[in-house]
Amino acid sequence: MFRVIDGGITAPQGFKATGRHIGIKKVKKDMSLITSDVPAIAAGVYTTSVVKAAHILWDREITKNGGMVKGLVAISGNANACTGEKGIRDNELMAEHFAKSIGAKKEEILTAATGIIGLDMPMDTILKGIDETYSHLSHKREEAKNAASGIITTDTFIKEMALQLNICGKQVIIGGMAKGSGMIHPNMATVLSFITTDINISRELLQKALYESVKDTYNMISVDGATSTNDMALVIANKMAGNPEITEEDEFYEEFKNALCFINEKFAKDVVHDGEGASKLMEVEITGAETEVDARLLAKSIVNDILVKTALYGEDANWGRVLAAMGGSGGKFSPEKIDMSFESEGGKIKVMENGEIVKFDENEALAVLGERDIFIKINLHDGKYSAKSWGCDLSHEYVRINGEYRSRT
Amino acid sequence: MFRVIDGGITAPQGFKATGRHIGIKKVKKDMSLITSDVPAIAAGVYTTSVVKAAHILWDREITKNGGMVKGLVAISGNANACTGEKGIRDNELMAEHFAKSIGAKKEEILTAATGIIGLDMPMDTILKGIDETYSHLSHKREEAKNAASGIITTDTFIKEMALQLNICGKQVIIGGMAKGSGMIHPNMATVLSFITTDINISRELLQKALYESVKDTYNMISVDGATSTNDMALVIANKMAGNPEITEEDEFYEEFKNALCFINEKFAKDVVHDGEGASKLMEVEITGAETEVDARLLAKSIVNDILVKTALYGEDANWGRVLAAMGGSGGKFSPEKIDMSFESEGGKIKVMENGEIVKFDENEALAVLGERDIFIKINLHDGKYSAKSWGCDLSHEYVRINGEYRSRT
Repeated sequence: MFRVIDGGITAPQGFKATGRHIGIKKVKKDMSLITSDVPAIAAGVYTTSVVKAAHILWDREITKNGGMVKGLVAISGNANACTGEKGIRDNELMAEHFAKSIGAKKEEILTAATGIIGLDMPMDTILKGIDETYSHLSHKREEAKNAASGIITTDTFIKEMALQLNICGKQVIIGGMAKGSGMIHPNMATVLSFITTDINISRELLQKALYESVKDTYNMISVDGATSTNDMALVIANKMAGNPEITEEDEFYEEFKNALCFINEKFAKDVVHDGEGASKLMEVEITGAETEVDARLLAKSIVNDILVKTALYGEDANWGRVLAAMGGSGGKFSPEKIDMSFESEGGKIKVMENGEIVKFDENEALAVLGERDIFIKINLHDGKYSAKSWGCDLSHEYVRINGEYRSRT
Repeated sequence: MFRVIDGGITAPQGFKATGRHIGIKKVKKDMSLITSDVPAIAAGVYTTSVVKAAHILWDREITKNGGMVKGLVAISGNANACTGEKGIRDNELMAEHFAKSIGAKKEEILTAATGIIGLDMPMDTILKGIDETYSHLSHKREEAKNAASGIITTDTFIKEMALQLNICGKQVIIGGMAKGSGMIHPNMATVLSFITTDINISRELLQKALYESVKDTYNMISVDGATSTNDMALVIANKMAGNPEITEEDEFYEEFKNALCFINEKFAKDVVHDGEGASKLMEVEITGAETEVDARLLAKSIVNDILVKTALYGEDANWGRVLAAMGGSGGKFSPEKIDMSFESEGGKIKVMENGEIVKFDENEALAVLGERDIFIKINLHDGKYSAKSWGCDLSHEYVRINGEYRSRT
């Protein structure tokens, strides 16, 4: 079992970080650096969008080809997406410059960017920024926080966490930071997740654990259904914990994977919660599905549905919209068999049983839907598979933020 | 070539219709009847939702098995969906009762319903309503309008049209009526389309023409991405025009299909335009796609995207959101090759050329985006396939209408 400890990405052994304002944004921190004292392995999961930012292409090359990693440079305020060949060269230049600062090769540096798309990177500012920032790299708790601040854009709070677990008598630490805001400033909908750990694990299993955790967390949240050009999740492992290398899907692998899932689920929910426009969070749980695919499709369809989102905003226990979303999802189920309930700290109302509508008390419904965190639970009675998804409501504030003229500037 | 003539579903030879208020709704018309003087063939395209209203199952049996049709009874205000076995029996009872009134068998009667889901049909009201309404059945123009009124729910205007074409020297008429409102009162998002025609055509080609026309029209609109439990498009053909039967995909088939597409495109756009919440319409045209599937996926992804919809509302020429929607759609394209422009009666701005961002004048952009009908044109330079889609904006009004507590009552 793991436990939550105070800390962020500098919590595992051998990781340093920092974050500073270098002038891409007006005032807020806009550059974050991470280094590992020893070469580390890395794994990544990247956006499936056809339109990919330059750093996605760069990092994918490194993680796919099994390169060793010594550091990461991330900027916020400029996405370096839709910037063509120049963007690719600029990204490489940024990696190269940071590599030189810390005595590494450019191929050992991961990169990341988030912010406005279609704008060339301000390279003078960035190169000068690296020069001014890297000397602050430190194991200190404070610098982990600075790094977590350096990657956010419209987020209203930083997202970081650290976990401690025990692998074969050795203390292993996992640290993480993420960015992503529920309410999606235009073209900044990116979710970035960075995990550091001192665990000793094979590259293959590191990649597998990351992929599995992303599938159940980031891939199951919906704010507005958009896929960003810049989304990615990275994990860097430097083996300094000294545990015997994990090379099989044994109990230690499971423990590590569960810890990764825990962090990423926390960050994923934070992303949904964050942002001005989101006033409520829904957690949808599908149980009793015939296949995993059906469970996931159905769970995802509900948090993605605009009508469900507006009903949530309106505090309306609208089972009809939930059912309609499921019906159109492509996921398999039998409407005449399902149970459905809405739950929260305010109570619980059952709205369907064996496919029949259950009459409920309006006041009880109001008490349940009036809360911030709403749980929609659906049992399909079709099989043994289940899935969870998370989403937020669709509010007036969302339309205001996203509908404002020239909102991307 | 066809031409638009005044009229609705009673325009073709041998069709009668009527529409009255029978008491399902408080005040507005809520029952529509159609009959053909002679037995007719019928074709249907139905919702793909797993959750299907009773009439969908009933009509599908008839059109699939090649039954001959003498009439149609439609009610609005109650969807007869999620009503289980009772709903299926009630639907049959409604068909049977209308059949008796006009001297037909229940298997010769198509049915339709739209309105609140999960409520049992008020059968006394409906059977009594049929008794009081069927005597008004008439060829008259006025009764076609009444029928068009009887099927609408939240629509703010009736949707009807008639076309005349010439097939082998014979005058052929197509009449139609539809319901569907852009702005989607909860659980009433249904699109219903009814077409009558006196053309003589094989059942197989009638079905094919309908399917093709729906694919390019109703299937390419988006209001909120929801798939209704009640959606369907029906066409009834009674052969009274006396043209030689169309049995091949010849020029006459093409003419008929084009006319069907014309009516259904008109209705599909009407649906998007209708409703309080929608203030703007966008027409997206993808050209130069490598395959038809890619063209359709990409076109559809743009009108479905919440961020594009809010940008449209905000009159923002936000190419970044359009590109992001395309990127995540699953449709294939090369970002570095595309051209994109925004057009309207207010002018035209090019925003991308060969994948590069084109700087545009803010005032010109405002002039273009300030109009009601906005055209987004994208050339992928990848091939010869194209597709069009239509959608509306996402406004404050949308959130108000759909977020109101207990809005379904």
